[in-house]
Amino acid sequence: MSTYVLVHAAWHTGTELEPVAALMRAAGHQVFTPTLAGNRPGDVKTTGLEEQVRSIVDFLTDTDLNDVILLGHSSGGMVITGVADRVPHRIRRLVYCNAFVANNGEAITDLVPPYYPGLLTKGDDGSIALPFPIWREAYINDADFETAQRAYDRLNPQPFKTFTDKAVLRTNPAEMTLPKSFINCTEDMALPHGFAFHPVLSAKLGLFRLVQIPGSHELCFTNPARLAQAIVEAGRD
Amino acid sequence: MSTYVLVHAAWHTGTELEPVAALMRAAGHQVFTPTLAGNRPGDVKTTGLEEQVRSIVDFLTDTDLNDVILLGHSSGGMVITGVADRVPHRIRRLVYCNAFVANNGEAITDLVPPYYPGLLTKGDDGSIALPFPIWREAYINDADFETAQRAYDRLNPQPFKTFTDKAVLRTNPAEMTLPKSFINCTEDMALPHGFAFHPVLSAKLGLFRLVQIPGSHELCFTNPARLAQAIVEAGRD
Amino acid sequence: MSTYVLVHAAWHTGTELEPVAALMRAAGHQVFTPTLAGNRPGDVKTTGLEEQVRSIVDFLTDTDLNDVILLGHSSGGMVITGVADRVPHRIRRLVYCNAFVANNGEAITDLVPPYYPGLLTKGDDGSIALPFPIWREAYINDADFETAQRAYDRLNPQPFKTFTDKAVLRTNPAEMTLPKSFINCTEDMALPHGFAFHPVLSAKLGLFRLVQIPGSHELCFTNPARLAQAIVEAGRD
Repeated sequence: MSTYVLVHAAWHTGTELEPVAALMRAAGHQVFTPTLAGNRPGDVKTTGLEEQVRSIVDFLTDTDLNDVILLGHSSGGMVITGVADRVPHRIRRLVYCNAFVANNGEAITDLVPPYYPGLLTKGDDGSIALPFPIWREAYINDADFETAQRAYDRLNPQPFKTFTDKAVLRTNPAEMTLPKSFINCTEDMALPHGFAFHPVLSAKLGLFRLVQIPGSHELCFTNPARLAQAIVEAGRD
Repeated sequence: MSTYVLVHAAWHTGTELEPVAALMRAAGHQVFTPTLAGNRPGDVKTTGLEEQVRSIVDFLTDTDLNDVILLGHSSGGMVITGVADRVPHRIRRLVYCNAFVANNGEAITDLVPPYYPGLLTKGDDGSIALPFPIWREAYINDADFETAQRAYDRLNPQPFKTFTDKAVLRTNPAEMTLPKSFINCTEDMALPHGFAFHPVLSAKLGLFRLVQIPGSHELCFTNPARLAQAIVEAGRD
Repeated sequence: MSTYVLVHAAWHTGTELEPVAALMRAAGHQVFTPTLAGNRPGDVKTTGLEEQVRSIVDFLTDTDLNDVILLGHSSGGMVITGVADRVPHRIRRLVYCNAFVANNGEAITDLVPPYYPGLLTKGDDGSIALPFPIWREAYINDADFETAQRAYDRLNPQPFKTFTDKAVLRTNPAEMTLPKSFINCTEDMALPHGFAFHPVLSAKLGLFRLVQIPGSHELCFTNPARLAQAIVEAGRD
């Protein structure tokens, strides 16, 4: 049995990963779903990437977790790479789940098409929101309308600074000696062709274990059981 | 329950989509499978794209259909884009099913490799036919031989002018405000890599909902049930 | 019922394809799994591509097999192309299973990234071995650890000359009149993106029948039943 820490995507909190975690716990694993700084109720929306990385480093340190399989979903990939750079001794394997893979000096806004930030709704508090049509068609295309709407209602505004802050890394992912896995959900359209999580961003990991499953970017809502199975296959050794 | 109009591919008629339509009707939907001008028994084979578009516009007008989910299979994609440009007020959503997506001024022959037309058998009446080996290996690769042969025997000669006529559109697909979906059959080899229906042609839709299923270009023959399910997921809201 | 000859990959012997062959035989087919020169117990590790091709030509001739569906897995693709060039009259169809497709004058080392040979462990006897982490993550990513380890223990050192010898062909695969199929295992990461078995190498076949199934490069260990089914679909007519 293993210890997993699941780091959620932009606009999400750890609570959205709880259905996945519950299934993994039922299979005997220890699973944590911390919510990142900037996404907790009441957090200011000027939070940056470094504070998000720090919030997971602190979580691992405060809980004194070791031998952790650390998963990041989507923008959570930026976070787990940073955590692995700071406290590699606490981690057994990194698992990217349709997640951004950045080298030192790269921000999410460097990894998406230039027009992407313009599609988002900007708030006065430094946050950005995803318009519902984009969510429904490109993020959660495998859901029925009710699931898409209910999931959308749970999202929280994302600090835009987490998208523009550049990764600060001593070691790029491909050079990290930690084992790595990549879970690709084959109907994920959150990024367009040519910028895809897999195989474009995944290639930056160097050697990695691919696990591929049907589904959209939002399997945590549409098929948590299939996602839980994929995570265990990605992390099992 | 929704209203669907399914527009068939080159060499087909609406009859080939009837097994799909029957399953959708059993689920409560209203489904029409009109046959395009040029593919009806006795039609002249000098028919062009504009006459095919007109035949569907007339069908929608004569039947006074509104709030239609309009699907096009393969070359039927050329037709539904034209119909959406003419009578957008009758349409709720466009669904491309491994279909050509053209901008204003583009013909099918602009979207396929230059050597493709040379693979076809030209008739004296302006028609083209698909040689059986291409049909069997690249179009209906998921069938057994008997299914491939029986399906081939039902095809009718295609007016070549429908392949060379350029789309005449006031609005290109990506700029149309109508919602769009794309069904990709993952073993479809009718177009070679670099020219693929998805992700090459689908990218011209702008924002769209992807539904992906296993199978060849000819699921209407090899797995109508799976195709019917995909169409409903593509069109459900 | 058909006659199949299955040609194994580098580091393998025919024995590793026996679970697949047994399932095909149970369905009524005649199936052979010869081991290539250079991979048999006691073989010298200076064997080259031509000797491997010759060993299959001799097998077909000595056994007097005709109307053969000849399958090659991975580097076995180099061998079956050579065999088809020498004795096309004995063959009904070629089936490439995530296999190398070479034109005249191309070696495996021309078809992989330049850094690939440097990842292998070179022996004093002319052989190369695959380090376990590469095997586990990129070749057999769909296995549990025990299956990955047990399979690894069965591999034998590969003569490196079989990777550097250039194919000597009178006819390139696309120009061969023999029907061809390609089985693509969708989680195969033995080759990186841009060099993939499918669609990069498969495109060199010209017209071919695609059969696509989930799984890694090593389905002979992880899912022989699914692979057997795919082979029969690839070869059935």
